[in-house]
Amino acid sequence: MITREALLHIPKSNYSYGYDEDTLHIRVRAKKGEVKKATLRIGDPYIWEKGGAEGGNLNAGGYGWVSGEFIQMTKEVETDLYDYFITEYRPTKKRSRYAFVLENDDEEIVYGEKRIEVLTDENRLGKLQDIGNFFCFPYLNRIDVANTPKWVNDTIWYQIFPDRFANGNTDLDPEHVTPWGQDPKHEDFFGGDIQGIIDSLDYLHNLGINGIYLCPIFKATTTHRYDTLSYFDIDQYLGDKEAFKRLVDEAHKRGIRIMLDAVFNHIGFFSPQWQDVVKNNEQSKYKDWFHIHKFPVVDQPLEELNGNYLNYETFGRVANMPKINTENPEVIEYFLEVGRYWVSEFDIDAWRIDVANEVDHHFWREFRKAVRSVKPDVYILGEIWHDSLPWVMGDQFDAVMNYPLTDAINSYFSRSSMSAEDFKYAVNKVQVSYPLQVNEVTFNLLDSHDTTRIIDIANGNIDRVKLAYLFMFTQSGSPCIYYGDEVGLNGYKKEHGYEWNRQCMIWDEDKHNKDLFLFVQKLIKIRKDHPSLRSTHMEWVMTDNDTNVVMIKKETITIIFNNSEHAKYVHLPEYLAGTTVNDLFSDKKTSLTSSIGLKPLQYLVLEQK
Amino acid sequence: MITREALLHIPKSNYSYGYDEDTLHIRVRAKKGEVKKATLRIGDPYIWEKGGAEGGNLNAGGYGWVSGEFIQMTKEVETDLYDYFITEYRPTKKRSRYAFVLENDDEEIVYGEKRIEVLTDENRLGKLQDIGNFFCFPYLNRIDVANTPKWVNDTIWYQIFPDRFANGNTDLDPEHVTPWGQDPKHEDFFGGDIQGIIDSLDYLHNLGINGIYLCPIFKATTTHRYDTLSYFDIDQYLGDKEAFKRLVDEAHKRGIRIMLDAVFNHIGFFSPQWQDVVKNNEQSKYKDWFHIHKFPVVDQPLEELNGNYLNYETFGRVANMPKINTENPEVIEYFLEVGRYWVSEFDIDAWRIDVANEVDHHFWREFRKAVRSVKPDVYILGEIWHDSLPWVMGDQFDAVMNYPLTDAINSYFSRSSMSAEDFKYAVNKVQVSYPLQVNEVTFNLLDSHDTTRIIDIANGNIDRVKLAYLFMFTQSGSPCIYYGDEVGLNGYKKEHGYEWNRQCMIWDEDKHNKDLFLFVQKLIKIRKDHPSLRSTHMEWVMTDNDTNVVMIKKETITIIFNNSEHAKYVHLPEYLAGTTVNDLFSDKKTSLTSSIGLKPLQYLVLEQK
Repeated sequence: MITREALLHIPKSNYSYGYDEDTLHIRVRAKKGEVKKATLRIGDPYIWEKGGAEGGNLNAGGYGWVSGEFIQMTKEVETDLYDYFITEYRPTKKRSRYAFVLENDDEEIVYGEKRIEVLTDENRLGKLQDIGNFFCFPYLNRIDVANTPKWVNDTIWYQIFPDRFANGNTDLDPEHVTPWGQDPKHEDFFGGDIQGIIDSLDYLHNLGINGIYLCPIFKATTTHRYDTLSYFDIDQYLGDKEAFKRLVDEAHKRGIRIMLDAVFNHIGFFSPQWQDVVKNNEQSKYKDWFHIHKFPVVDQPLEELNGNYLNYETFGRVANMPKINTENPEVIEYFLEVGRYWVSEFDIDAWRIDVANEVDHHFWREFRKAVRSVKPDVYILGEIWHDSLPWVMGDQFDAVMNYPLTDAINSYFSRSSMSAEDFKYAVNKVQVSYPLQVNEVTFNLLDSHDTTRIIDIANGNIDRVKLAYLFMFTQSGSPCIYYGDEVGLNGYKKEHGYEWNRQCMIWDEDKHNKDLFLFVQKLIKIRKDHPSLRSTHMEWVMTDNDTNVVMIKKETITIIFNNSEHAKYVHLPEYLAGTTVNDLFSDKKTSLTSSIGLKPLQYLVLEQK
Repeated sequence: MITREALLHIPKSNYSYGYDEDTLHIRVRAKKGEVKKATLRIGDPYIWEKGGAEGGNLNAGGYGWVSGEFIQMTKEVETDLYDYFITEYRPTKKRSRYAFVLENDDEEIVYGEKRIEVLTDENRLGKLQDIGNFFCFPYLNRIDVANTPKWVNDTIWYQIFPDRFANGNTDLDPEHVTPWGQDPKHEDFFGGDIQGIIDSLDYLHNLGINGIYLCPIFKATTTHRYDTLSYFDIDQYLGDKEAFKRLVDEAHKRGIRIMLDAVFNHIGFFSPQWQDVVKNNEQSKYKDWFHIHKFPVVDQPLEELNGNYLNYETFGRVANMPKINTENPEVIEYFLEVGRYWVSEFDIDAWRIDVANEVDHHFWREFRKAVRSVKPDVYILGEIWHDSLPWVMGDQFDAVMNYPLTDAINSYFSRSSMSAEDFKYAVNKVQVSYPLQVNEVTFNLLDSHDTTRIIDIANGNIDRVKLAYLFMFTQSGSPCIYYGDEVGLNGYKKEHGYEWNRQCMIWDEDKHNKDLFLFVQKLIKIRKDHPSLRSTHMEWVMTDNDTNVVMIKKETITIIFNNSEHAKYVHLPEYLAGTTVNDLFSDKKTSLTSSIGLKPLQYLVLEQK
């Protein structure tokens, strides 16, 4: 018996969506292990035998004389509770009605929008044409398809926190600049700037990355610059527009794309707009730019404001970040112009959106239209940590920061606090949560300026760090390296008043972890050379809770992880045993037997030709 | 054991949405009968004890010293497979993270976004604060809330098919007008017009309706006028703009609102735009207004075109309805102006959207903004027959034509082809498929110009028709009467080349079913006088498959249906037994005992004061 309560399909969601203007993707969920065969019954509502506006009469094979098609679905993945099946369909007239025929040894059922019914010899023909009980994807309109930019899947990002990456022009340093490399306090300025990044482009190009995600560079008060003062100006300590233009041009020359950080949820306390409100209160022309409960809006110095009791809304409970009213048409137009300006004037390639989930959907729809009208393949990336489907169905963001994958990878490889099976389920759950073209451009990361650095997440174990990186680099989407991780920079998030995760980049090569650098460099090259590593299709060949050996397969490439501190000896799957493979890390050919010995925390990337 | 696979919650869907700018509604689904108590654990992510950006420290009662709230959820409804629980929450700072604590005799579990976990004495405090596993409604932005117009819930619609309702000006009749009341063929014109509707307003006002849904009135070729020739002109046979303005004014004077039918999916074959394409092909300035595969687009007379093999896309396979390319900015602006024009110039109150599901979402979002900018409480109603959540989350339509409820009511009452329990489940399934403010303004109907008329659905049994009407009038949303149903007009949809469901209105009172008219008139009055009948809250007091007696309760009003051709004697529920009630149909006080005798197909509407 197939558990009815576990079946799930939702039209126009992660369960059915236009993959491109001609192709639908359709998923269905069932209780794990119960469904042996899943078939999609689908056709145009106007050419069905019965129930449509017109009659058709096509022989659909063993199912008798009915129109529409029967498409066998593929088991996509499994999670702890469910199996997911998927297939694609190209509706000739863009219209589709459909149901699922699900079978096991006991029964065959049809799962439709209104009812789940057992198929019998008597009712079969009727039930398979009863489109009144079918799900509907009424019309595959191109404009509604999530058209994620193709280049992102080929991109390897490098995240830079500008104050801490490289100081290329000491003339710009603040008066009380903190010496490079000193323990980083929240309020310290270290003098990192745009010229420093330009000077480092060859380093980055040599590392192999081809996208830079820059934390905020607009004029601001703090060192993290998430409290913007002016969205149309580069911060004075970082440089000027001429410098930024050179950065974009020099990066582009090297095939490196540039992503800027957009903070539209809130603004800086000392921005002219907010200061005008602070000063003029009800009389301020900016009062409707914010969410104000009471005037005077601020009646004491910023330092003395209590985040719990403010007369205005803020980001979190942070008094120096008043929340913007993005429902105000004047505000909308102002921020759309920000979005367009840096794309059209500086040719940036992507916007990363800060606190993306707290700004209204209406604004993001307008934002997408605005920036895409200037450059049709701009990548729009939302900072959302939780399940994000409502933002990535095509009208708002291309993808989100994939923290659920971060959690899974770090729990399994970095902290070893999760079983191999649970790891697989967590990874798979992310996959089925989104349209595949979103997964193709999702933003994968192990750490960021908002988290502890990967080396400390892995408790200093570089071998674990390597496994984590390797897994991330074999996933679809675009992986990101947080500046300095590649040379061994470590650091916990906030501890004893310091922000260790935002330490200064180490430029003294003697202090680099050369082994880690070479690993990351090689990994980037392997990913670039092998498109299959970037695809959304992955097979879990082995996930063994006892041995902690995991094998995954991306087309002809098998990646083996021994996520254990012990040597392991495991049987190879039949398709690998006895074959000769190319070890992509050593670039050597290897002849495999039926088993393989793995050193503690060893990894292998083996290509079959 | 609570069946994990059956649990369902999806943020920003029918399971969680802003009901108004201050209030969230949150639902959770579980396998039927399994969960004894459902508690919503919810709070602001920045004031949780742990896991948020900041610490809070509030005593949450029996759950210990943690912040956030515990809200007991109400069982909303049950369907064949599931129980649904609901509650509301007013987040002080608009932000929410939450999970569900579900209990039965065996266990207590917490259902979160990432995991379902059993609560124990040891882990309780931790799991109830582990907001990394919580669902997220990041911010309740007012602009994203589905703001459905309040007046619709108070509206009783009357659908008019203009050619067949009333002929008020014979000067406008086409040359070969068919005599009023003759058997209706597809191509017949009977001369119904706007003046006829104006002349009938007192009749409609006397009936009690307060909204008119007009099928298309714009210039067209056919008698149904879904093949528009000009969106800015009234059809010559119906009258002119002056007449339409008078209709709106006279209707408004009587408190009757006007809804027009918008056909933007396709246009008439003989529209100037399409004719320009037919004539000029590649050279036509309108060629991008359509979906054209090949030129010449039309190479033979319309009558000889085969709907299966056309060089252009159409509605269904109907050659004389070329599909509009609503992704074209020029087309978008044209149709937005149509939307605005009839609202701003003629003060219409609502748009009913034809074939709403096949036009892209992008267009409907623009359409809502456009018409709402002219009149903030315009009602936008989509013609969608299947599950419609993707259209009614606030950015597109207010509601859809509620055909799933139509199916349920007609299956149970009109055709008697469904059990009482299944009827309850079908009705409940519609309820939980949408935000409650959508249900408040949904468009309920028993029949329409697209279906067989209710009297024939009920196989001529007027008592069954009455039960069907009565049930519809006790539901939330706004009920609609298809013209003439109230006086006994019958007719099957298309039969032997006739469209019997579009027969001419009967104006000879001697031929009216006076009893049915008085019933409908009284029913309208009862609904208007008793707001509780219009609310979304309903209790199923009795649904008995054996007796076929159904009782529902709307606050103080109990409605009893004997959906059986036999007399029945049933026990009354405790709250009714022995009380004195007001019979709203007879306007008499009745003293109830512990049981009640019901005649075949009898109904009772009993109010307790």
